[in-house]
Amino acid sequence: MKKLIKDKTQFLSDMLDGLTISNKQIEVISDTVVVRKNKKEKGVAIVSGGGSGHEPAHAGYVAEGMLDAAVCGEVFTSPTPDKILSAIKAVDNGDGVLLVVKNYAGDVMNFEMAQEMAEMEDIQVETVVVKDDVAVSDETQRRGVAGTVFVHKVAGYLADKGESLATIKEKLEQLLPTIKSIGMALTPPLVPTTGQYGFDIDDESMEIGIGIHGEKGLARKKIESVDLIVERLIAELLKEVKAKQLIVMVNGMGATPLSELNIVTKYVSQQLDDKQKDVKLWLVGDYMTSLDMEGVSLTFVPYSEAVYEALTTSTSSPYFNI
Amino acid sequence: MKKLIKDKTQFLSDMLDGLTISNKQIEVISDTVVVRKNKKEKGVAIVSGGGSGHEPAHAGYVAEGMLDAAVCGEVFTSPTPDKILSAIKAVDNGDGVLLVVKNYAGDVMNFEMAQEMAEMEDIQVETVVVKDDVAVSDETQRRGVAGTVFVHKVAGYLADKGESLATIKEKLEQLLPTIKSIGMALTPPLVPTTGQYGFDIDDESMEIGIGIHGEKGLARKKIESVDLIVERLIAELLKEVKAKQLIVMVNGMGATPLSELNIVTKYVSQQLDDKQKDVKLWLVGDYMTSLDMEGVSLTFVPYSEAVYEALTTSTSSPYFNI
Repeated sequence: MKKLIKDKTQFLSDMLDGLTISNKQIEVISDTVVVRKNKKEKGVAIVSGGGSGHEPAHAGYVAEGMLDAAVCGEVFTSPTPDKILSAIKAVDNGDGVLLVVKNYAGDVMNFEMAQEMAEMEDIQVETVVVKDDVAVSDETQRRGVAGTVFVHKVAGYLADKGESLATIKEKLEQLLPTIKSIGMALTPPLVPTTGQYGFDIDDESMEIGIGIHGEKGLARKKIESVDLIVERLIAELLKEVKAKQLIVMVNGMGATPLSELNIVTKYVSQQLDDKQKDVKLWLVGDYMTSLDMEGVSLTFVPYSEAVYEALTTSTSSPYFNI
Repeated sequence: MKKLIKDKTQFLSDMLDGLTISNKQIEVISDTVVVRKNKKEKGVAIVSGGGSGHEPAHAGYVAEGMLDAAVCGEVFTSPTPDKILSAIKAVDNGDGVLLVVKNYAGDVMNFEMAQEMAEMEDIQVETVVVKDDVAVSDETQRRGVAGTVFVHKVAGYLADKGESLATIKEKLEQLLPTIKSIGMALTPPLVPTTGQYGFDIDDESMEIGIGIHGEKGLARKKIESVDLIVERLIAELLKEVKAKQLIVMVNGMGATPLSELNIVTKYVSQQLDDKQKDVKLWLVGDYMTSLDMEGVSLTFVPYSEAVYEALTTSTSSPYFNI
């Protein structure tokens, strides 16, 4: 298998060992829960997580101003309720815990169970569920993808401002329906735990509307020039995003070189200009990946002063660069 | 071609357009020269560059505390002397200009010609040449690879401290022979300007000691477990690095996911521990890439307080994260 790994059963533990060697602000507890070494003494604690394979999400966002804990499941596999409960108990300081969950059946179920278990131990817990992927038409079934990183950042900012658990949940519930993403892939992810590719695709084709686990998208097409690909993605997003001022994330899927993300950025900018949209902030890089999938996703959020401030306030995460 | 590009003739210009859209602190002059919008009013100006395809190097390091300009050649092609001269003239403020050049014949020749042309215009110019790749045994022929990024950072730091051109050159000449790198690849880069892969390799093999343009290395081997790969790389580096305290860069080659760079980090750390080496600082990420090549390089620098301070002082580059 063309991977820098030792053994498929050690992928997650080796990755977390390596991450905490280079990033001195975090540590691993309960085998797969990443927390800040300096636990926050007050304020709502923000917990997220899910299957691994999306690095730097989620563990890389455990940092001042973002997450207090990330619960890391095996590759593309939801973490179990007991691990989520460990995370909640480790970070709660009496001001309550907010769970940021991507909308996948396993994640939603396991985070919900953990919430119930924590509440039985008198910890205040609330949950928000991210469903930003417009490639799925049924809004209740929409997957949580790269827009989740915006939720991590805004949640961490609001917690640091001293907002209450109820207020943070309320503000995020207003923000969530405005975050819209869509992705595409040129190549599938090679899943280290199985040695299998996430999907089959020939050398001439691409998948539009793909999920971050290689889930089927809107359409399989012959590969096109990047400007035409961008046109397809923007068309889907602008069916739902009506704001004139936007914040835009150009997210690499794991194996896409920065040069190509920059080229995508040029055409997104050009086409949004043509549609009289004004981009107030760009985020370009690998934020929510799918192992070594080649491809890109776009996330649009309507600009507001409040969201801009929340996103541009500094964090100690080495992976949230603006 | 499985690439997010429009036209191969536009790869460089599209990339620079996109880069300067998302990164508001830089701009393009003379078509392919990236400079800081806020030109430094005093102090030595640091200029680097070379062929493109190594992003974020070099343009991404044009930032406070690092480079004042990056001269961007076409993919894997040296920039021409006239462009280098444009960069020198754009950034010189009377305190002189230092050129940081990777040891490739075309780069060395063209930067040298530009230096001579600038000197004829009474601009003080000095050059340092980076030759950190231990995969080449003849030291005079060694390629400049990921260690170049350390030179950018230290040079920018010394310039900001107000050191003279002569002093910066002298300090870098002391540092340069201590920086040692070696790389490996699982897959070749797909070169957008030709549509060809940089080299041929089968599904079971890897190349040890590869250069950042896919140049042949020390040995073609069957793919091994990451701990054995790391052992090979470290063995080559420790032939030359005798210090007990080190600074280590684990550099992705462009298509290597962060999860795998973290796994590499674990085994580098473990094996250096076994050899009683103490790593004082880790840099893990994509610093000097080879388009979409999958692979990793390691760079070792002996730790000193001075180098540590130079590397950890903040820069405004979004791509130099420590």
